[in-house]
Amino acid sequence: MTHPSSSHFSRRILKTPGSFIREMLNVTQQKEVISFAGGLPEPDLFPLQALQHSFQLALEREGPQALQYANSEGYLPLREWIAALYTKRGIPTTAQEILITSGSQQGLDLIGKSFVDPGAPILVERPSYLGALQAFSLVEPDFHEVEIGAHGPDLETLQREAKECRLFYTIPDFQNPTGNRYSLHSRMNIVGAMEGSGMLLVEDEPYRELWYDVESNDPPLAALYHGPSISLGSFSKVISPGLRIGYLRAEALLMKMILRAKQATDLHTSTLTQIALFHYLTQFSKEHETHLMGLRNCYRERRDAMESAIHEMLRHEARFTTPGGGMFLWLQLPGVSATELFPLALERGVALVPGISFYANFPREDAIRLNFTNTAPELIRRGVEKMVHAMESLRRSGYVYGSR
Amino acid sequence: MTHPSSSHFSRRILKTPGSFIREMLNVTQQKEVISFAGGLPEPDLFPLQALQHSFQLALEREGPQALQYANSEGYLPLREWIAALYTKRGIPTTAQEILITSGSQQGLDLIGKSFVDPGAPILVERPSYLGALQAFSLVEPDFHEVEIGAHGPDLETLQREAKECRLFYTIPDFQNPTGNRYSLHSRMNIVGAMEGSGMLLVEDEPYRELWYDVESNDPPLAALYHGPSISLGSFSKVISPGLRIGYLRAEALLMKMILRAKQATDLHTSTLTQIALFHYLTQFSKEHETHLMGLRNCYRERRDAMESAIHEMLRHEARFTTPGGGMFLWLQLPGVSATELFPLALERGVALVPGISFYANFPREDAIRLNFTNTAPELIRRGVEKMVHAMESLRRSGYVYGSR
Repeated sequence: MTHPSSSHFSRRILKTPGSFIREMLNVTQQKEVISFAGGLPEPDLFPLQALQHSFQLALEREGPQALQYANSEGYLPLREWIAALYTKRGIPTTAQEILITSGSQQGLDLIGKSFVDPGAPILVERPSYLGALQAFSLVEPDFHEVEIGAHGPDLETLQREAKECRLFYTIPDFQNPTGNRYSLHSRMNIVGAMEGSGMLLVEDEPYRELWYDVESNDPPLAALYHGPSISLGSFSKVISPGLRIGYLRAEALLMKMILRAKQATDLHTSTLTQIALFHYLTQFSKEHETHLMGLRNCYRERRDAMESAIHEMLRHEARFTTPGGGMFLWLQLPGVSATELFPLALERGVALVPGISFYANFPREDAIRLNFTNTAPELIRRGVEKMVHAMESLRRSGYVYGSR
Repeated sequence: MTHPSSSHFSRRILKTPGSFIREMLNVTQQKEVISFAGGLPEPDLFPLQALQHSFQLALEREGPQALQYANSEGYLPLREWIAALYTKRGIPTTAQEILITSGSQQGLDLIGKSFVDPGAPILVERPSYLGALQAFSLVEPDFHEVEIGAHGPDLETLQREAKECRLFYTIPDFQNPTGNRYSLHSRMNIVGAMEGSGMLLVEDEPYRELWYDVESNDPPLAALYHGPSISLGSFSKVISPGLRIGYLRAEALLMKMILRAKQATDLHTSTLTQIALFHYLTQFSKEHETHLMGLRNCYRERRDAMESAIHEMLRHEARFTTPGGGMFLWLQLPGVSATELFPLALERGVALVPGISFYANFPREDAIRLNFTNTAPELIRRGVEKMVHAMESLRRSGYVYGSR
């Protein structure tokens, strides 16, 4: 065989970063590794029985239609259910404004395809979700960043960038990777800074229901903003990621083109999984409420375990804000290179994600993202301990970040 | 709300054609319309019982892991099964060379992303699969075309274009839309014309198993070609399209980048549907063989019904080659505009696809694609009759194609 050379590859794919987290998945799923790396839900909490029944129902009731090609928009009853959810959150929505996607990652792909030309400036949070940076990289934008703190993005930067950037991608609820949730005050300010610019707001809300202290009652940015907006959501964190069902909300004019991208991308999302999911949501709605409470209780306990272990063992070396929900704790480690820390930690049996993965430009070295939802409390403690040993070993090796 | 203007849209999406067929799906699925339009399998033949058992098995045996995030490559046992299939066809393949895709449409999207830069010349058959033209449009290539006949592409053009184009997309078995299958002789010639050029061969084989007269025993082009190649396959036509499971074969060097595109596009294909499909293929392998024979028998009968109806009613007005397999009959109607015919036919209750949808450049007006797999023989006859009436009405209206 003639060996293909890099001349075969597109410019865009050569520029798209691989996912450190995806590539680590095979390693971190080994039983002997304590993994703080992925963003995996606790599998023991999946509503297995109810989903089993739902798949049976879907195949029994809809029969062959559950196995046939379907329209690109998605299963209408499921879209109606999702539209009602948005309406309840303060964004009046019809089923025609909902598209079912193959996971909400696909929503990002479709948005990139539909709205971003090569070289076009787009605004992302600093730091931001790695998967979004990857998806957008495929359309070769000019990434601009806005620094975010516990209460949201820097408003001066946002206002300035709103004049230049075509879209702003944000995760206002328990952001990935920082865990920050933006207050109502901050939301008003964000929208205020964008208003009049015509900038497309892309609001990603996969963690909104995963609150552990105070319920998520603040309106989504899309309910406050008068400019064009797209909302992304997912069943992955609250029901099952293996089904690969997400959704996208957009007004009709935007939806027309997004739908064209969906057609060209994968025709439509699995008919059967959509129908089964709809049966789960409607036939097992009470069980689902109980399930959500169970998730919150379990993840709260794990969050608390991680917080107190870090507080106890790393009080002087690390800075962090306790996340009020979501899946991640963002740890800043002044003077430590997380990239150097990673292999030492893995050697000791704990996996984490170095912060550099979450920056579009000029990555910061001195932060790590820790997932707490996929590990039992006692193992979380042991994992933090291993991490501390790895840090000590890094220090002993004389490595001081910033000194070279 | 500020109304979004077309200035929000990317150049690529504005240039990507909508799918006439997808947009018609809601219309053509109405009971009173006889649809020759889609590429739908006969739903009554779906192996419903076996799939029901397979989903149960997947959830019982693999439990939560069937609902969890999984690696981007796909479920290993399923990839091993597919690798064995290619090996049997004369392309020695390991599981590492197989990627599970969300339908084989996604394979096209990933290939476009990984290998095609804006403006890069790529070669497609004339006519070609509409979905491929759509998927590739998203990466804004310069489409070159090679005319195809019953025995394959024009060799002179192919040889000339091989020097210029980066890839060649072809469907050698019961092509969509023409139904042509390339002979061994033709396959040798195709590969001969490409050899030494370094052009990437993209071979799409969704219909290979759907032969009605003579089994598909000729080697795939990828087994003959010494240059780089990618094969695409799908379970949609032989098991169920609603599951959205396709696959892609590529050597390791190419796979590395395709996998990166897959990560960024939708993380991975549904874990549960992959596992269930694997159980179907292995636990119900005998049933699957019987199922395939049943498909062939049913579709052969329908193909025959369409052939004889056309032969009887359109002998003097139409030209076509009887397809030896696949799902489509390609009818050339000298002097008739299929685009004008379409609404008249639909008015009479029969849907078809005008030929213009299948050309990257300079569409031909005087052809239609007819699907015969989704309609019972007696309805096929009635549908052809309605089509003939529509043609007569078009003639009466004085419309002669080419006269204006």
